[in-house]
This record gives sequence, structure tokens and C-alpha cells, in this order.
Amino acid sequence: MAESMNGAESLVRSLIASDVDVCFTNPGTSEMHFVAALDSVPGMRCVLALFEGVATGAADGYYRMAEKPASTLLHLGPGLANGLANLHNAKKAGSGVVNIVGEHATAHIALDAPLTSDIEGLSWPMSHWVKTSTDAKEVGKAGAEAVAAARTPPGQIATLILPGDTAWNEGAGVADALPVPARTAVEDASIDAAAAALSGPDSLLLLGGDALSEANLDLAGKIAAKTGCGLLTEWSNARLRRGAGRVEVNRIPYVVEMALEVLAPYKRIVLMGASRPIAFFAYPNKPGILTAADVEFTEVASLGDDIAAALDGLAQATGAASAKTQGVVSPHLPDLPNGAPHLDGIAAVIANCIPKNGIVVDESVTTGRAFFPTTKGAAPHDWLNNRGGSIGYGMPVAIGAAIACPDRKVLAQIGDGSAMYTQQSLWTMARENLDITVVIFANRTYKILQGELTNVGVQNPGPRAVDMLTIARPELNFVDMARGMGVEGQRVENLEGFAKALKAGLDSEGPYLVELMM
Amino acid sequence: MAESMNGAESLVRSLIASDVDVCFTNPGTSEMHFVAALDSVPGMRCVLALFEGVATGAADGYYRMAEKPASTLLHLGPGLANGLANLHNAKKAGSGVVNIVGEHATAHIALDAPLTSDIEGLSWPMSHWVKTSTDAKEVGKAGAEAVAAARTPPGQIATLILPGDTAWNEGAGVADALPVPARTAVEDASIDAAAAALSGPDSLLLLGGDALSEANLDLAGKIAAKTGCGLLTEWSNARLRRGAGRVEVNRIPYVVEMALEVLAPYKRIVLMGASRPIAFFAYPNKPGILTAADVEFTEVASLGDDIAAALDGLAQATGAASAKTQGVVSPHLPDLPNGAPHLDGIAAVIANCIPKNGIVVDESVTTGRAFFPTTKGAAPHDWLNNRGGSIGYGMPVAIGAAIACPDRKVLAQIGDGSAMYTQQSLWTMARENLDITVVIFANRTYKILQGELTNVGVQNPGPRAVDMLTIARPELNFVDMARGMGVEGQRVENLEGFAKALKAGLDSEGPYLVELMM
Repeated sequence: MAESMNGAESLVRSLIASDVDVCFTNPGTSEMHFVAALDSVPGMRCVLALFEGVATGAADGYYRMAEKPASTLLHLGPGLANGLANLHNAKKAGSGVVNIVGEHATAHIALDAPLTSDIEGLSWPMSHWVKTSTDAKEVGKAGAEAVAAARTPPGQIATLILPGDTAWNEGAGVADALPVPARTAVEDASIDAAAAALSGPDSLLLLGGDALSEANLDLAGKIAAKTGCGLLTEWSNARLRRGAGRVEVNRIPYVVEMALEVLAPYKRIVLMGASRPIAFFAYPNKPGILTAADVEFTEVASLGDDIAAALDGLAQATGAASAKTQGVVSPHLPDLPNGAPHLDGIAAVIANCIPKNGIVVDESVTTGRAFFPTTKGAAPHDWLNNRGGSIGYGMPVAIGAAIACPDRKVLAQIGDGSAMYTQQSLWTMARENLDITVVIFANRTYKILQGELTNVGVQNPGPRAVDMLTIARPELNFVDMARGMGVEGQRVENLEGFAKALKAGLDSEGPYLVELMM
Repeated sequence: MAESMNGAESLVRSLIASDVDVCFTNPGTSEMHFVAALDSVPGMRCVLALFEGVATGAADGYYRMAEKPASTLLHLGPGLANGLANLHNAKKAGSGVVNIVGEHATAHIALDAPLTSDIEGLSWPMSHWVKTSTDAKEVGKAGAEAVAAARTPPGQIATLILPGDTAWNEGAGVADALPVPARTAVEDASIDAAAAALSGPDSLLLLGGDALSEANLDLAGKIAAKTGCGLLTEWSNARLRRGAGRVEVNRIPYVVEMALEVLAPYKRIVLMGASRPIAFFAYPNKPGILTAADVEFTEVASLGDDIAAALDGLAQATGAASAKTQGVVSPHLPDLPNGAPHLDGIAAVIANCIPKNGIVVDESVTTGRAFFPTTKGAAPHDWLNNRGGSIGYGMPVAIGAAIACPDRKVLAQIGDGSAMYTQQSLWTMARENLDITVVIFANRTYKILQGELTNVGVQNPGPRAVDMLTIARPELNFVDMARGMGVEGQRVENLEGFAKALKAGLDSEGPYLVELMM
């Protein structure tokens, strides 16, 4: 313990000592000591957001790419509440996040001031770990505990609530970092069972989480080559390496009928970082479980297990370790299309534009559902999807990814309805001059819901129902909105214009927005 | 019970039968049956928002002006989460809201689909009443119960969670409306105690809630005339009638030192719909309780009590019933100022522009703190403040107020930092062609936080702390953003331009935005 410091400074220094050196924030009065501490403590990069959902989503994207947590700084219960939807997404993605939530000073809570609320109650539904610090001398230690909780594999949401007096009272110096919790080893018996299950084209190796790294995909490709099993991933993945030179794995489709068809051939399914396939939503007279009752599952590794070792063991147990990897994609760029936008054409433009080592953040909802076949031969890249299903995830995750990887280009493809949830993100992109190109697919509807109306059994929706799914009245103009937040952009109406604008955006060093009118 | 209908239609019809006929919504798949029911059921006005915080804030504003609840329709846990901050504000304002939150079908919840979360857990911190309906035949009745809960004085947050199968299964027709719960009568002994306490200028009648209606203010003015007591309100009120012809009541200031000074003269304080004065935040070495330890409080009526009858009784008990009301404001408009914006000048412009019977929604945070003296002689109007302190309340509340009162003009004055929280509101204003003029006070900082840094004891904040409170980099342009959402507007840089633009906005029939550069 060195010189005198208050609780807030002790917390900031302890976070840094635990290797948490980025903070996505929208602070308020109760967080002012934390903000003040930033001036006296070097080493914490603070990124301001104009809405808390941007901050929490950015922390999700940061974890996916940096593989270590960032912190958020949020203002009391309502500030946390504004960030909960993207914490939900982060939780489902297995991302680790350290939330610091300011609270009234301990003596003030009983007075029921306007901003008083049940912060712990708000925290629990979207957190794995929650603690209210009640003593300035314990705050540094609590920070180290929060980081350890957030780093518990695959990554957890840790929420530390900091009453004002524990920030401003005298602290107890810098807490040591706690050990980073290890992934759980998979037992040999599971690996042997999986090896027995994988034989022939009626067996499937379903991959998720850490199984989607480049090296692990290579192992999966060897196993497929040796055993003849199929390879698939879930509909949404936190981070999938794909493109030329990587092993191709396709996603189980979102649409129930298509998912049933894709999964029908398989009698034995080995789960490697993935869960049993289920439908995104329930519908009347459709199954929620996407596999037949007699399918045999072998659950080898969940998201937090040592998937790399398990895949390695499985390659050995199947005799695949020295096999030639199957399914490696050759470089291939489709011809650049012209004319009015259509889904295959949009995919072809994107395939041509994905930068080498680029990061694609995909919140295209309906438009991008079938981009995989067309984009598979693009330059190698990472593809990030939303595992929580709460819209408004894409632009914030792009921010976090860009800050985690300053040398890589980010392409965020977002549906217009989703983009409106967290469009404040554009301002942070401009402020931090992040190398992100945002593509807005402007179909001017909640298009997914038009299909969902049919799925739930409404065959001929009337005008009032349709009106609730239509966002064309008035027409949104994302170029105007982006300009208002300091981001340049352009609107395009055909595929040749889209290709030119997308290339211009990606060639620039800072943020750029392309609004594709569909 | 008439013809066959599913649970969703039974719910919509039951809400209408309970006099809930407005729904602020952002629906998703799990709410599709509710949306479909809107076509077969006349009488429910559905207002689409592009973000749930807009929907819940609009329901707050609607209740304040219509004095009956609207419903919201929200998509699962994350959709509710996005609406929680403005539900917090509504709860603190004593506004009644009926939230309908879609949930996965009962059988699907156990599958832990991407959007699964603990909806009841998320609901409780911001709700007074929570129920998950588990039977389509009970849904209509649950709707009627939710309305009764929301109408429990002064108004409560009722959250009804609706699993998909209870929406699509066969319902049990329309549930009868339940009786509207009455306000609690105040006992004579309390009124007698208050009458004894109010004597001379060292006594204060502190008014809140229903005490701020025109008739009740008139009674308060008589009591003040007769007893010599002072009249004040809390810092924030859900709805205060003021302007020419109304009794003037000032607010207890936000700043602790000013509040202490204003309250110092009073030895006896009678609470009539108000709470004991406390500070908004706690600060090191400042009191949280704003009154001396020896002040005698008489708590006559809380927000949900029959304040009108209590004031009437108090007027009789003090012999004030036939007194001449004191403090009625004469019409007075200050001279229109010119030149660079300054706070008194801005207030003078607003005083001149407030329309007769207008509704002022105030989220000006720092800029508008001292507008009351200058605007007191303006045309009679309602003034709405944020009682929950979570920013982003103003534009949504303006939407709800405009829908509740289509014949009245709404002036929403919003700080730029606050406006960015729920700027999606502008689109709904355009879509519904609401008669709202939005004024953005563009000081390009979280200005309140600059003061709060000093308040918490940071005398010389460094560049990194100041940077976290500054939103000038990049500069926001609200006129561009508004245009992108279908709302016309203009930016003004001096007071004469402000007056002209504000008048033009208020003279128009639809939404308009004025961005005042400060």
C-alpha cells in the first residue's frame, strides 16, 4: 500500500492492476470521484457514450475481440437499466464485463431520493456476480474480485455497486490481481463417447464458442475428414473465424422449417461448445426442439470448458490428428453485381469488400440471413453475431471491437430498425475516430416481424397490424442522423453505388456510414 | 362472453373495457397476437416507438395529463429493460402505467432460448404490481386487475407478463372493469394538527401531487392568506399549474446551499402531497436532510391520499375558506431580449411564447433551473418536471402529453445531453404529427456534472475528467438528426432568432425543433 488515496482511486488502480484498462462510460454525480480519479491514474482509457446501452454493448464487443474484460461506469439504477439489454446480449455471448454502478452514499439511500432504486435487484437478471461495496477500504479488493468473476470462462457479467461514500472515503491502496480462473477440463470419457458417436454422415459435430477459433476449426476439419461427420454451428456465434483459408462451417438456420431440414440427416450429435438446437421463438404448432426425439446427444464441452483441449483429444481419439483438414475454403470473390439491390447482390458486394483480417459485426436480422454461401471465399475475417436477440447490439459491439483491435477494420451491417435502438453509437465512433464502416440495410420495416406474423398463424394481417411493423412513415434518413453526430456517409440506391460507397468507407481511416435503400 | 377469441384479443378488449385505449409500443414476435388483435378490435390507439424508453416515457406523460393509464406493449425482458429508466421516472411521478410484456410460450421458457430472461425479476424494481398470466382464459381478467393496480392512487406501475401461448390459446371473452380504487381519506386529527401548525411566516405548507391543481392551489392561497404561512413545492413536480391567474408556488432549489437558505425560516412544515425535503444527491460534508433537526413536521397527506378534501378541510379548519386568495399572479410578459443567449434572456423568450393552456415539459436540467420568476406571468400553463431524475424523460413525456391533450400545444425544453438519450422520440412525433415544439439547449456539456464535480470536492478537475463531461467533440447537430427522423427545425444562435424560431414552431400544427446554441 503506497500513498493515500480514496476508494474511487483505489478501485481504478486495482482494475488496472487486474489488466482492465478500458472503461466505457456515461457517468453521473455518484460517479464523479471515479471520473476525478482518472486524472491522477494513468492507464485507463475512458470512452464516453451518450447512452448506457452503447457502453455495455461496447464492452461486449471488446471482450469478444480482446479476450479480456473492459469496465463500464454507469449512473445508479436507471443508468444500469439503460445498459441491461446489451448486458443480456453480452451474457448470452459469454462475454466478460465489469460494471461499476454508482449508488447514493450509504446514509442517503434511506432518504428515498429521486434516483434511488433497487440496484441489486436490477443487476441480478443480467449478471452472474453482484456485490455492493460498503467500505472504501474494501473497494479495491472488490474490484479485483469483479474482474476475476468477469474472467470466469467463458466470461461473465460482474456488477459492482459503489455507494458514493465508499468512493470518497479513504481507501486501502491497490488490490492485487486475482488468478484468472481456468477453463474446466473435459473428461476423457466424454471424448471417447464423442469419438464413438462421430462416424459417417449421420453424425454431426456442433461447434460453438472457443471451437470457432482458427486452430480449433482446423481440428474440427480434420475430425470431419476422418469420421465423415458433418460440421455446423448454432444460428448465432459470438465470434466465428471464416473466409478464405478457414474451414467452412454453416449456421443452423433461424427459420424453423429450414433448421429441421438441415438437422434431419443427423442421428448422433456431439456438442462442442454448443447447446442442443432449439427454435429462437415458439410458434403454435411448430416444434421448439429442432431435433428428433431419438437423436443421441453427446455433450462434450460447454462454453466455459477447455474446448481447445477437448477438440485436440477428440482428434487423437478419432485418429484424425494427422488427417488432411476438410472444408478449407479457397479464395473466391463473386462478380460485382449491378442494378437494384437484391439479397444475393448485396452479399456479393460485401464479399468483395470484406477487408483482410476484417471484423464483420452482423445485425442484419433478415437481410443478411443467407450471406454465408456468397461471402465464404472472402478475405479471412471474423464474423460476430448477436446471441441474445435484443436488437441494438451491432453498432455498440463494433465500437468495442474497434477499440480492442485498432489495427483491424470493422464492418457493421445493421438493419434500420435495429440501428435506431443505439444510434448514439455514431457519436462515439466519431469522437474516438474508430475505423468502422456502418452499413444500414434500409428496408423500412421490422421485416422479421412480417414473417413472424405469418409464423404465429396470422395469415392476412390488417392495416393496423401492418402499420405497427412499418417504419417508413416518416422515412428515416441515416445520413442526416449520422452527420448530426459527426459521421460522414452517403445513401445509395443500387448495387454499383453500394460497392463504391462501401469501398470508400472501408478505405477511409475513420467512421463512415452507408445507407442502402432496399 | 360473446364470440370466440384468443387470449390476446380478450386482453385488448378487456383493456378497452377498463378505459385503457392507448398503447405505446415496440412489439416483437412474442407480441404478434396482440398486434394482430388490433385489427379486429376497434378502439385501441396504437402508437409505435422506435425504442422502448420512448414508449414508457410517453405512458408517463399520458397519465399526467389524461389522469388515466395508457398501456405499453414491450418485447420480452430486454424490451422491458429498455423501458425501465422511464418507468422509474413514472413510478416516482406517481403515474399509472399498464405494461404488457410478451414472454416466450410457457413450454419454450425452459429451453433457454436467446431472448429468455427473468422478466419478473426485471419488473419488480420499477413496478408496484407484477403478474405472469399462465392461462389464456385468465388473461382478460389479469388485464382488468392490471388496470386497477395502475389506477391505485396516485398511480402505479403494473406489469403483466404474457406468455405466447396465453395469447394464442382460446380466451374467455371480455373481463369487466374493476372499480377504480379511491384515494385514502385524511383523518380530521391530521387536519387539525396542520391547522394548528400553520401560523405566521415561520410555518410552511409544502405542496405536491394533486395539491398543484388549479382549484387546490386556490385553496392553498386562501390558507396562506389567512395563516401567513409560506407556500412551496418540491424541486420536481409531475404537473404544476402556473402562469397568469394561478397562485404562485416556487420550488425548493436543487442546489443544497440554496435549498437550505429557502427552508431556513420555517420551524413548522405541513406536508400536503409532498415529502420531507432532502437533497437530490449526497455530497461529502453537506447535509442530505434539508431542514433543521428541530423542525416540526405534520404529515397530512401523501401522494395517494385525498389531497383535495384535505386542503378543503384545512381551509375550513383555519377559517380560510372565505379568505381572499393570496399570491395570484398577474399577467406579465418581460421585454423580448436580443443578443447572445443568457439564462434570463432565454427565460424571457419562453415566457413570451408559452401558449395559453400550453404544456411545458421541462428537462432543461441546468439551463432552466431559474426560469420560474421570469415565466410566472406567462399565459396559464402546466409545467411538468422529472421526479425520477433519470435523463431522457422529456421528449417521451411530451409525446404522451400531446396524445392525451390533442387540443393543447406542448413545449418540450431539453438539455442536449438529455435529448440524446431518447431522441428516437422525434420520429414518433412526426409519425403522429404531434403538436410539440422541442427546444434543445445546446450547451455541449453535461453541465450539471461540472457543478457536481465541485460539489463532491474536486476543485481542479484535470483534462481527462473534464473530457468525460464534455459532449462538444464532435459537435452534435440536432437539426440534422431531427430531419433524419422527419421533423423540421432550425438552429439559432441569438435571442431574437430564438424568439422567432420558437414562435414559428409553436404556431405550426405539427412537431418542430429549435436548437439554441449556448
